Amino acid sequence: MRTYLECIACFVRQSLEASQFVTDDTEIHERVMRDVLRELQGMDFSMSSPEMAQIIQRLIRSHTGIADPYATVKKQSNEIALGLYPRLEKIVNESKNPFVDVLRLAIAGNIIDFGVNHNIDLNLVEETIESALHAPMPETAIGELQKEIERAKTILYLADNAGEIVFDRLLIERLPLERLTVAVRGAPVLNDATMPDAWVAGLPDIVEVIDNGSDAPGTFLADCSEDFLQRFENADLILAKGQGNYETLSDVEHNIFFLLKIKCAVVARNTGLATGSFALIHSNQAGAQAAEEAHASAAL
Amino acid sequence: MRTYLECIACFVRQSLEASQFVTDDTEIHERVMRDVLRELQGMDFSMSSPEMAQIIQRLIRSHTGIADPYATVKKQSNEIALGLYPRLEKIVNESKNPFVDVLRLAIAGNIIDFGVNHNIDLNLVEETIESALHAPMPETAIGELQKEIERAKTILYLADNAGEIVFDRLLIERLPLERLTVAVRGAPVLNDATMPDAWVAGLPDIVEVIDNGSDAPGTFLADCSEDFLQRFENADLILAKGQGNYETLSDVEHNIFFLLKIKCAVVARNTGLATGSFALIHSNQAGAQAAEEAHASAAL
Repeated sequence: MRTYLECIACFVRQSLEASQFVTDDTEIHERVMRDVLRELQGMDFSMSSPEMAQIIQRLIRSHTGIADPYATVKKQSNEIALGLYPRLEKIVNESKNPFVDVLRLAIAGNIIDFGVNHNIDLNLVEETIESALHAPMPETAIGELQKEIERAKTILYLADNAGEIVFDRLLIERLPLERLTVAVRGAPVLNDATMPDAWVAGLPDIVEVIDNGSDAPGTFLADCSEDFLQRFENADLILAKGQGNYETLSDVEHNIFFLLKIKCAVVARNTGLATGSFALIHSNQAGAQAAEEAHASAAL
Repeated sequence: MRTYLECIACFVRQSLEASQFVTDDTEIHERVMRDVLRELQGMDFSMSSPEMAQIIQRLIRSHTGIADPYATVKKQSNEIALGLYPRLEKIVNESKNPFVDVLRLAIAGNIIDFGVNHNIDLNLVEETIESALHAPMPETAIGELQKEIERAKTILYLADNAGEIVFDRLLIERLPLERLTVAVRGAPVLNDATMPDAWVAGLPDIVEVIDNGSDAPGTFLADCSEDFLQRFENADLILAKGQGNYETLSDVEHNIFFLLKIKCAVVARNTGLATGSFALIHSNQAGAQAAEEAHASAAL
C-alpha cells in the first residue's frame, strides 16, 4: 500500500514525539524537524508508509545519538500488558468462544501503541478490553483462518508492537506451537517489538522466535534478512499483526491473514473498513481491495 | 506568541485540506505539499503561527490559481450560523445574564471553524451551543471588560472567522455601537471573515466595519494597512476574537481583551488554560503569561 499525502502530518507528529522522548533540548527538536521536513519534501510517495518511517526514524536516531528512542515507552507498555495478563487469561478461560476472544484481545493489544497515541491512558486500555470483547468480528474470515491453521504445515506470526506482543501470547498459545514461528523486527524502530520484547512476553520458552533483520516498522521484504525471507516464502500461512505489516504486505501475493485495528482514515479507505474497527483480512480480499482502488484512482 | 514545533503538523494538515477544497487533482495536491514542506523546513519559528500560515496559504493560492479556497466553506458556515440566529437571539432575550451569555455564544461561534475542524457536524454545533451556555466564565475578567466598555471612547472589535461573525453579532449588538468599529481581514485566507462575510452577518447596517488590509489569519500588525494601524493605536479598548488574533497580538502592549476557545495544546500551554476552555483574557494577563513562559524557557 502506497503512502498518502494524509500520512505526512502523521510522520511530522511522530518525528517530534520521538525527539521529545529522548531529549528536552528544543534546539535538537528543531534541527530534527527541519531535517525531517527536507527529507519528506523529496520523498517518493509510492513507497509504503513504513518504508518512509524507516528512513525518518533512522535520521532521528542519528541526530539524537539515541539508538532506541522508544526504549522507555516499550518497557512501560510491556509492564502494563503483563499486569493485565492474568485477568486476560481468566477472561479467555471462561469464554464461550475462546478463539474469537483471543483474536479480539490480540487486536485490542494494538491499542498499546505509542506510535499512534501520544500518551497511554490506563482507563482507555480497560475500556478497550471491555469493548473489544463485544467487537463485531468477520465470521467468514475466522472460519477460513481456522481451516488454514489446521491445514498449514508451517505458520509464521509477524508481531507488531511492544505491549501488544504480550496480548499476542494469548493467541499464540492457542496455535499449533510445533508448526509456528514468531517473527519480530530486527532492530529498534518506533515502539515495534524486537527480541527483548519477545523475551519479556515469555515467547521463546514456548515457541521459536526469530527476527526479520530489518528496522522498518512493518515487513518491508526488500530490507529483510535472507533467513527471514526463506521462512516467509516457505510458510503455508502468515498471520500479520497491525497496520505496519498491513501497509507493507497488502500487495504481496501470499496466504496472509492481517489482524489489526483500523487506526486511521488512510487504512480505512484502503481496506474499505471503518476507522476503529477490528479487522481480520485474508490477503486475497486485501489484494482485491487494492486492485479496486488502483482501478478507481486510474479512472479519476 | 511564537510558533511551536507542534504547529508544523497542523500547517501540513491545513495545507492538504486547502488543496483538497479546490481540486481533486492529486498531482496538484502533491506539488503543493512538497512546496509547503520545503517552505516549512526553512522557516523562522520565532514568527507567530498566523504569519507562517499567511506565507503557506499564499503559496497554495498561487499553486492552485484559486484566490479563495475556502469560499464554499465560508458560505456554508455563514448559512448555518444564520439559520441558528433566531434561536440564539431568543436564548439571549430570555437569559438572566444576557451579557455573559453573548460572550459565551460569541466564543461558541468559534467552533464553526473549518480551519481547525475538517468537517462541520450540525449535532456538534447544537451540543456546543448547549454546553457553551453552561461553560464556566472568568467573572473578574468579565467585570473588567464591562468597566472598560463603559469607559472607552473608541472600541475596536477584531472578528475571526466566517460563520462565527454571525454569532459575534449577538455581542456586537449589545456594545455601544456609536463608539464601535468592527474589523475583518483584508483578503481571503483560510475561513477567516472578510468584508462579504460582514455584509452577510448584516453588520454594516448597524456599525462601522473596516478591513485590516492584510491576508494573515490573525492581526499581524506589520502587514496591516496604515488606516487600520491608526484605528488600532487610537482605540481605547480592543476586543479580539479567536486563536489567530491571540497568537498575533498576545505580545503587543495595548488594552486588549482576547475572547476565544482554546483549541490546541500549544495555546493551552501559552495561556495556562485547558484545551477546550472558554477564555476571556485581558492583555496584561496575556503579557504576564508570555513573560513567565519566556522566563521559564530561558531557564531551561
